[in-house]
Amino acid sequence: MERQRILSGMQPTQPKLHLGNYEPIKSWVRLQEQYKLYTFVADWHALTTMAENPGDIAANSREIVKDYLAAGIDPERTTVFLQSHVPEHAELHLLFSMITPLGWLERVPTYKEKKQNLQTESEPYGLLGYPVLQAADILLYKPYGVPVGKDQAPHLELSREIARRFNHLYGEVFPEFVNILCDTPVLMGLDGRKMSKSYGNAIYLNESEEETAKKVMSAFTTPTKIRKTDPGDPENCAVCNLLRVYSPNWEVQTDECRRGLRGCVQNKRECAEAINEALRPFRERRRQIDDATVEAILRRGAEEARDFASRTLAEAKRAMGFR
Amino acid sequence: MERQRILSGMQPTQPKLHLGNYEPIKSWVRLQEQYKLYTFVADWHALTTMAENPGDIAANSREIVKDYLAAGIDPERTTVFLQSHVPEHAELHLLFSMITPLGWLERVPTYKEKKQNLQTESEPYGLLGYPVLQAADILLYKPYGVPVGKDQAPHLELSREIARRFNHLYGEVFPEFVNILCDTPVLMGLDGRKMSKSYGNAIYLNESEEETAKKVMSAFTTPTKIRKTDPGDPENCAVCNLLRVYSPNWEVQTDECRRGLRGCVQNKRECAEAINEALRPFRERRRQIDDATVEAILRRGAEEARDFASRTLAEAKRAMGFR
Repeated sequence: MERQRILSGMQPTQPKLHLGNYEPIKSWVRLQEQYKLYTFVADWHALTTMAENPGDIAANSREIVKDYLAAGIDPERTTVFLQSHVPEHAELHLLFSMITPLGWLERVPTYKEKKQNLQTESEPYGLLGYPVLQAADILLYKPYGVPVGKDQAPHLELSREIARRFNHLYGEVFPEFVNILCDTPVLMGLDGRKMSKSYGNAIYLNESEEETAKKVMSAFTTPTKIRKTDPGDPENCAVCNLLRVYSPNWEVQTDECRRGLRGCVQNKRECAEAINEALRPFRERRRQIDDATVEAILRRGAEEARDFASRTLAEAKRAMGFR
Repeated sequence: MERQRILSGMQPTQPKLHLGNYEPIKSWVRLQEQYKLYTFVADWHALTTMAENPGDIAANSREIVKDYLAAGIDPERTTVFLQSHVPEHAELHLLFSMITPLGWLERVPTYKEKKQNLQTESEPYGLLGYPVLQAADILLYKPYGVPVGKDQAPHLELSREIARRFNHLYGEVFPEFVNILCDTPVLMGLDGRKMSKSYGNAIYLNESEEETAKKVMSAFTTPTKIRKTDPGDPENCAVCNLLRVYSPNWEVQTDECRRGLRGCVQNKRECAEAINEALRPFRERRRQIDDATVEAILRRGAEEARDFASRTLAEAKRAMGFR
């Protein structure tokens, strides 16, 4: 029996992924056991905010594919591809742009946030159309569902609206998909804010154990905890936050911190070791992935993706009256 | 020596072309003597205003191709194709959407006019992006020039701006093209307003001689010219306007009208005959074009267009850093 399809992706706005990005990928790895996963690198999407300075978008995309693979995405059962290798995404985007009311896009809650994160002077047309391209990305694969964190669920609503509007105008082409809620932890970065490349507070998947240890040793803890015996505040401490996710022993560690029974240096050492331990198999696998393997996987992935996407696109065009 | 390329197109917002549409096509027919012409039917563009009710967009597009051919577009030397058969237009549109500032689009003078002509309730995202798709249409063929009426010249300026911005950001890919100004007459419709499908005042290329005659006989002339001897006002008379374009004898006809030496009925009869005479070879040729011929021309046209367009697109993607 054919497995139900699901669809996931990430933008190559950064050349390397950090711990915060790793969490959703781990849930994709679990989901591929049960579903036929299409996972892609959204290299066109990255242009919505970085067109004036895209960096080496091709190299960055391949780094992310290596991260996918090292995390356990299995190209034998999962289709791994780059968005820009599947022109059907661009064509369905154009068709959807003709049926998506401007007002819907202007009201997207994250639109203003994205505008603020712009690395360009003038806002491009394509930034406003971000959800239109996202709808095309998703709907081309007629997925059963899309894995999504709680905070991103509203994004997907617009894809559903576009599908409904298309079906209403031209007949049923795009089945409704569900949100597959992945309860991944939001990681605190080294400075206590959300972990993010742009804050410079991230631990990268592919850095050395020494780099990770050095970063953790300089992380933000509890400012009022000067001596070991001062009580800590684990809820607002970056190190305790990371221990909670990565250390099997976190209950003892945070409890002793709170009660002033251990110092930050001990916690930091144990935190660095816990993270390095958790990443060791990933980092080991990643070292073994060579460029030729990635290219071969992307070529096959693009073929598989186009095979499905081109049939959906043809169906959509027929429904609209093109031939 | 390779001829310089030029590019022209028309929207299939109507199933049949009228005299006003015929004038630019006649200039393309002349231009194909000198240039390598790519001429297309902009079927995707039609969706910017008609997505909610596209009618039979495929059939309409083919009717327009028949009009092109009957008018003298020669598929042996000119590439005739449908926009939706060349997915490279959609992909370059997506890339351009990432570098086109929203403000440029909001300031396009015809944007408001287009908004008013909308046949849909809510304005689609793609209407705002009309000039982005137009830029892709043009620039994919790296044309020497684009034939254009005086009133449309400002449209093309935005395509040039997008080309310049692309070249500035990623290196020289799109050569500057020129406007080939075609001084085609703006035809008055039967009611004295500009000839337009939406005003219901048009004479269609492919109607019968009887229909044309009947329409002309009921056309708007000079309201104060009741008797033959009343002086006419040829400048504001639809019939005299059409005589000027289609009758070799128009100077006598309009002069006698002005001086009250002839009546409107005589002018109408001669006008209908002049138009029918001018259209006779067109209508004769059009009757002989069968559907299979059109399909074969469109298939070959799409191949030729894609052959050129795909090379330009590949060059643009490389320049942006995709591979």
